[in-house]
Amino acid sequence: MNPLWLEDTLRRALQEDLGRGDVTSEALLPEGLIAEARIVSRSRGVLAGSRAAAQVFRLLDPDTEYQFLVDDGGCLAPGQSLALLKGKARALLGGERVALNLLQRLSGIATATSLAVEAVAGSGLRVLDTRKTTPGLRALEKEAVRAGGGVNHRFGLDDAVLIKDNHLCLCGGPARAVALARQSVGPLMKIEVEAETLAQVEEALAASADVIMLDNMPLDQIRRAVSLVAGRCLLEASGNLKPEDLPALAEAGVDFVSLGWLTHSAPPLDLSMRMTPLDTNLEAP
Amino acid sequence: MNPLWLEDTLRRALQEDLGRGDVTSEALLPEGLIAEARIVSRSRGVLAGSRAAAQVFRLLDPDTEYQFLVDDGGCLAPGQSLALLKGKARALLGGERVALNLLQRLSGIATATSLAVEAVAGSGLRVLDTRKTTPGLRALEKEAVRAGGGVNHRFGLDDAVLIKDNHLCLCGGPARAVALARQSVGPLMKIEVEAETLAQVEEALAASADVIMLDNMPLDQIRRAVSLVAGRCLLEASGNLKPEDLPALAEAGVDFVSLGWLTHSAPPLDLSMRMTPLDTNLEAP
Amino acid sequence: MNPLWLEDTLRRALQEDLGRGDVTSEALLPEGLIAEARIVSRSRGVLAGSRAAAQVFRLLDPDTEYQFLVDDGGCLAPGQSLALLKGKARALLGGERVALNLLQRLSGIATATSLAVEAVAGSGLRVLDTRKTTPGLRALEKEAVRAGGGVNHRFGLDDAVLIKDNHLCLCGGPARAVALARQSVGPLMKIEVEAETLAQVEEALAASADVIMLDNMPLDQIRRAVSLVAGRCLLEASGNLKPEDLPALAEAGVDFVSLGWLTHSAPPLDLSMRMTPLDTNLEAP
Amino acid sequence: MNPLWLEDTLRRALQEDLGRGDVTSEALLPEGLIAEARIVSRSRGVLAGSRAAAQVFRLLDPDTEYQFLVDDGGCLAPGQSLALLKGKARALLGGERVALNLLQRLSGIATATSLAVEAVAGSGLRVLDTRKTTPGLRALEKEAVRAGGGVNHRFGLDDAVLIKDNHLCLCGGPARAVALARQSVGPLMKIEVEAETLAQVEEALAASADVIMLDNMPLDQIRRAVSLVAGRCLLEASGNLKPEDLPALAEAGVDFVSLGWLTHSAPPLDLSMRMTPLDTNLEAP
Amino acid sequence: MNPLWLEDTLRRALQEDLGRGDVTSEALLPEGLIAEARIVSRSRGVLAGSRAAAQVFRLLDPDTEYQFLVDDGGCLAPGQSLALLKGKARALLGGERVALNLLQRLSGIATATSLAVEAVAGSGLRVLDTRKTTPGLRALEKEAVRAGGGVNHRFGLDDAVLIKDNHLCLCGGPARAVALARQSVGPLMKIEVEAETLAQVEEALAASADVIMLDNMPLDQIRRAVSLVAGRCLLEASGNLKPEDLPALAEAGVDFVSLGWLTHSAPPLDLSMRMTPLDTNLEAP
Amino acid sequence: MNPLWLEDTLRRALQEDLGRGDVTSEALLPEGLIAEARIVSRSRGVLAGSRAAAQVFRLLDPDTEYQFLVDDGGCLAPGQSLALLKGKARALLGGERVALNLLQRLSGIATATSLAVEAVAGSGLRVLDTRKTTPGLRALEKEAVRAGGGVNHRFGLDDAVLIKDNHLCLCGGPARAVALARQSVGPLMKIEVEAETLAQVEEALAASADVIMLDNMPLDQIRRAVSLVAGRCLLEASGNLKPEDLPALAEAGVDFVSLGWLTHSAPPLDLSMRMTPLDTNLEAP
Repeated sequence: MNPLWLEDTLRRALQEDLGRGDVTSEALLPEGLIAEARIVSRSRGVLAGSRAAAQVFRLLDPDTEYQFLVDDGGCLAPGQSLALLKGKARALLGGERVALNLLQRLSGIATATSLAVEAVAGSGLRVLDTRKTTPGLRALEKEAVRAGGGVNHRFGLDDAVLIKDNHLCLCGGPARAVALARQSVGPLMKIEVEAETLAQVEEALAASADVIMLDNMPLDQIRRAVSLVAGRCLLEASGNLKPEDLPALAEAGVDFVSLGWLTHSAPPLDLSMRMTPLDTNLEAP
Repeated sequence: MNPLWLEDTLRRALQEDLGRGDVTSEALLPEGLIAEARIVSRSRGVLAGSRAAAQVFRLLDPDTEYQFLVDDGGCLAPGQSLALLKGKARALLGGERVALNLLQRLSGIATATSLAVEAVAGSGLRVLDTRKTTPGLRALEKEAVRAGGGVNHRFGLDDAVLIKDNHLCLCGGPARAVALARQSVGPLMKIEVEAETLAQVEEALAASADVIMLDNMPLDQIRRAVSLVAGRCLLEASGNLKPEDLPALAEAGVDFVSLGWLTHSAPPLDLSMRMTPLDTNLEAP
Repeated sequence: MNPLWLEDTLRRALQEDLGRGDVTSEALLPEGLIAEARIVSRSRGVLAGSRAAAQVFRLLDPDTEYQFLVDDGGCLAPGQSLALLKGKARALLGGERVALNLLQRLSGIATATSLAVEAVAGSGLRVLDTRKTTPGLRALEKEAVRAGGGVNHRFGLDDAVLIKDNHLCLCGGPARAVALARQSVGPLMKIEVEAETLAQVEEALAASADVIMLDNMPLDQIRRAVSLVAGRCLLEASGNLKPEDLPALAEAGVDFVSLGWLTHSAPPLDLSMRMTPLDTNLEAP
Repeated sequence: MNPLWLEDTLRRALQEDLGRGDVTSEALLPEGLIAEARIVSRSRGVLAGSRAAAQVFRLLDPDTEYQFLVDDGGCLAPGQSLALLKGKARALLGGERVALNLLQRLSGIATATSLAVEAVAGSGLRVLDTRKTTPGLRALEKEAVRAGGGVNHRFGLDDAVLIKDNHLCLCGGPARAVALARQSVGPLMKIEVEAETLAQVEEALAASADVIMLDNMPLDQIRRAVSLVAGRCLLEASGNLKPEDLPALAEAGVDFVSLGWLTHSAPPLDLSMRMTPLDTNLEAP
Repeated sequence: MNPLWLEDTLRRALQEDLGRGDVTSEALLPEGLIAEARIVSRSRGVLAGSRAAAQVFRLLDPDTEYQFLVDDGGCLAPGQSLALLKGKARALLGGERVALNLLQRLSGIATATSLAVEAVAGSGLRVLDTRKTTPGLRALEKEAVRAGGGVNHRFGLDDAVLIKDNHLCLCGGPARAVALARQSVGPLMKIEVEAETLAQVEEALAASADVIMLDNMPLDQIRRAVSLVAGRCLLEASGNLKPEDLPALAEAGVDFVSLGWLTHSAPPLDLSMRMTPLDTNLEAP
Repeated sequence: MNPLWLEDTLRRALQEDLGRGDVTSEALLPEGLIAEARIVSRSRGVLAGSRAAAQVFRLLDPDTEYQFLVDDGGCLAPGQSLALLKGKARALLGGERVALNLLQRLSGIATATSLAVEAVAGSGLRVLDTRKTTPGLRALEKEAVRAGGGVNHRFGLDDAVLIKDNHLCLCGGPARAVALARQSVGPLMKIEVEAETLAQVEEALAASADVIMLDNMPLDQIRRAVSLVAGRCLLEASGNLKPEDLPALAEAGVDFVSLGWLTHSAPPLDLSMRMTPLDTNLEAP
């Protein structure tokens, strides 16, 4: 995680929620009022996003104390507190919604990922994310996938070549496409090709693709692709795969499975923040 | 929708995905290659986000043609095309993922909202969103709620006073809190107070709150709150309400119901972009 | 006040004045030279902007000490010091002009507001600002109005509906306009309508506007509008009103008066910063 | 005027006023509704800021037509129209306040400057601004001074050396200070020194300052400074000078007079925008 | 090349040079004056950066015509014109220095790269850049390397794993390091390890590194590394290699050579811009 | 040096290199691992950029200790350490390349400048830079020139008038051009004119230019220009001058010589960073 990107992203999220300022807290609470709070989970899941959440509050007041009770990747039970906070009440309330929105979404992703990972535990199959992420939050969401035990597919259009059906229809078949790409990129960039048929798998293999994506292939074809490739390149299964499909995929012997729903449809974890005053000072602000 | 905010948000989303540039398209496709594409829905739902999607492609190439086949708020059937595009293949492929990620999420929100709105059709109950939105995308998500027939709760911490339990525990009861707020804000800002008991409803009403949020109240208490208030202020029901709860709420006579899952848990609509080449030119770039 | 917005605004103000750097101080003063300064008022008035001023210096050197001798909203007499500073001479001189430009303007606004507020002291009439603020400084200027005892009208085009003559001429009369607006916005947004005649006041009242702005109305009409409305909505008087008009307005019984000159024409308070060296070190930098 | 800076400044001003969008126009007016408007002066003065105003509207809709009826520096009579606009009603209303706030302030500065310039017409005395400008708007305000016939003092801390009393008290007298500065800066940067006594004028002159600022000097001392210097460097009079002081200053023979009130206290010109619909279409948006 | 990144980079470069505006052109030239110019090379080399240069002028005036006489990667002879321009004289002069500074630097890099590429023409050895680029200009400099016939090493710390001596000293030898990395990253990210000895080469090979960097190895060791590896992974030679070293390296059989001086020390190409007026209008601006 | 500009520039440089994060260090090193490093010179030269380098590391981790062993402007011998660092290993490795890229380039500029300055030591000739700097880094490069003993020409198009051949061809000869400029700018801005012939020198002198640039003049003409001007304005020699030309120029008596190669072609100083672990902790991150 690039710390400068993170700070910039959190500043923008806070600006969005704060706008011209928190009128409620400014009206009701003295500026210096100190309070304590805890963030509590209402459901079972895997935590992610805790460093981002801590920084949200510190951006509003650098003196806010944020004590991590659970680390990213750790399990949460219903009712369990994941963090204790102490600081200016205005900063705690000003950051509450942004911090919870992030934690809930990211922990939801980590939880979904960990379920997928468990479904293939013991096999060599590894669980990948996709680029179907929330615009603006990709790096955090990909970190949440790692917190849940998954690994990351490429981060953007720039860090690996991925030749999809739309490219193939525009530039010719896999052989020509991989050759053009190999000539254009350097030694540190991988080339993946999408294949929908075994013939395309063979062509991509012959063209020395680094990874072949088996897109929407039936299980028996996937098995035959695995035999055909025989370890000469990596194989990724893709295309609307559900958790219950994963064990069979693992058995079929592909190396990776990519799952869009990890990031676009994971149910958020239900969290809340509860405050308690420290001061007994109730004067108007 | 503020057009300057929208442009800025889309630029950041494109930067996130493009990074240092689309290595695949630059390797495979000539710079000037023109192509056509259509965006197709694979499921049933309500469209939202189409102007944002069109602008995504125009930011990469201002000459991209984007023809809207369905307007925001319109219904989509499986297999239905919602837009036709024509322009540089590199710009179409460079914007594809960002445009789809936005359209899928926002149409999912509009679809979920329209289901909630239908559930109370004919009653006076109106469906509200919350601040449980995706950090960075709130204005687009609130617009999607409107496309689905809902209305918007406040946009941030700055455009209305909302006194919640965390405030009440820090600054005293509803009476004192509303009085402090009324003194602090001007005539164009409303004041809402959260109430968990009928006693709090009475206190908030006496303090002349503009809106009272009935938080996690059982239905019979909600009914009694409605009689008690008798139209003297607006009433909003809130707290983990499901679609099946809405008709009874409507009958109980509250004015508004706010639903966090409209924005944090709506399943994305399944959309895809399909390209066809215009040129027969297949030379290397 | 959103602290992230404030920091960003002050950074830009410093960038504007510093450009590529303060050539005079870099030429004349050793980098580490520590100095003391005080900010002194040359006239009588009400202070505003002091937290912004303190932050200006801290942005240039976080170790600058800035001691507030008077708080925002406090009175200043000629010759009175409002702050003591101690820190790197280069940071003090680098921030001087930006800090004074802000303090002078904002204290001028607070002073003008306090004079208007005093003119109606004891009545129920409250003094409002407008959107006739300095582009880029609205949040600070609205805070200065509060420091002077006023309250804030809406902050921008987004936090309340205000239907003015230009809207009415485009979309029909008050009745239709308020109905359209009520249908479009949620329960936490108020609707104000401009009225120039009693007939318009009646129409707006019938349409359930939350606030009616009596624009450029003669005093006797204002009185009749007050009787007509009889507390059923808030009334705001507006339109080139001078301090000497305020007592009569207060007597007439309107709830609010909005005054553009609070922010666009308030004379700046005359302030200066005076430095004294701490070190006797006069070596070249 | 740097066009990139101008665009950036106007975008920020629009963001400040638009926030999350213009709720009134979005509720009342169809998106495509075209309207006409004119900007009219209610008082006598000199125009400035017209290009900025035109760009404000074009940033919201590039197709807005903005016809200049008067150029910057031209005179305005009460009731005179200075610009005709035609475009989307939403864009005209969305930009109205920002454009007027800028035009009023900048024309006020141009008007004040032209009065000062007229007061010394025929003499060689030239009217200068200062750095007492509005944070964020300096380049526009300095352009307004030129529109009114004035010339610009330095633009920031970086484009000229100006040794003031605060520097002198920290680094020794004028001789040492000018020598240090001369050694530090290149051949394209001028050096000005503040002098409060004739002895300091002599010392600064001996040190080969390019410009000497006579700060708060009585008129007879100014006359003696002029004789003493005898054209060997430029002389600037400064310090709370009023319009009525200018003719005597001109006669005394100083080259320049700098006036802080041109930018910090010029009364804004009273302008308004009046719209007329083009379409007869009054359907709901 | 990401077009949004490019625009942002060029805006910043123009802001740096323009500051508060081009005082010379504003003083001397009427705003509407149209002129023609040509950009001419004074030396022999390979062109790069031409699209960036064209955009520099269009950012100042979108109507500027910029005709490319030579494409990136094309050869320039002394005295040869590479572009014709026509547009507002102020825009041409305002963009001149930024455009030339970019073109000179980038063409220098393309020229240096093409000399290195020619030195190994006919062999399989390919020429790589490094991360020793100018802060802020990496994407443009890496594009210039491609224009000169080279290929790109990784673009940043994020798009490939490169385990260098500093990592090895902190985390153990190549075997452990590659294993840790493989476990952490996904299938689309390559792993390169630096090796200074043949033992390290063997260890990295055993750990299945994708690429091994032979750092500062003598030629005979490089030859032995090539035999040892025998095509099982890619080999990159690195470390202060000069053009005259390249043919022997090519013969030794490594796949890639990376050269820091392509970007940090390439002599800039000597270019200039020459203007001619179109109008005969010489009035003052 | 404007500290806010510097921070912004360094943040952008780090963003460029870090992208979405340092995958190597995140894979190999525990987050809290502390290490030490030193930056060592491999060649002889003059240091510049050390404060920027220190801040690079502090932006990634504010607790990084950076001990300056040599100050800017100090001499470096081969093998000499210029800084000691201690902090999180991830922050040291994350900032390494950006810090070295800056230090190498800036120290190269300081070194080249100091050689030019030595070549004219004892004479009154002073060495100037130009605007032929790296886009985005001008303020740092101009500071490096000062570290090497040079002085700065203007910083941009806005802080001095420089009338070049392209202006003269568009607006008439030096006399008219200087007069127009003098009328337009204030007393704190200098005016320089380029002259290629003695006739132009005479014309510029008569027009009271502050500085005359002798562009590409042969040495004998330069000598005659010096006699002609006789100290009545400053003279700058310019145009592809090499170090060996400088002593003769100094003798000819011009005041300044400007050298583009100080910034566009200075060979970078060869520096490296060497790390040592502090902890013996080698656990996986």
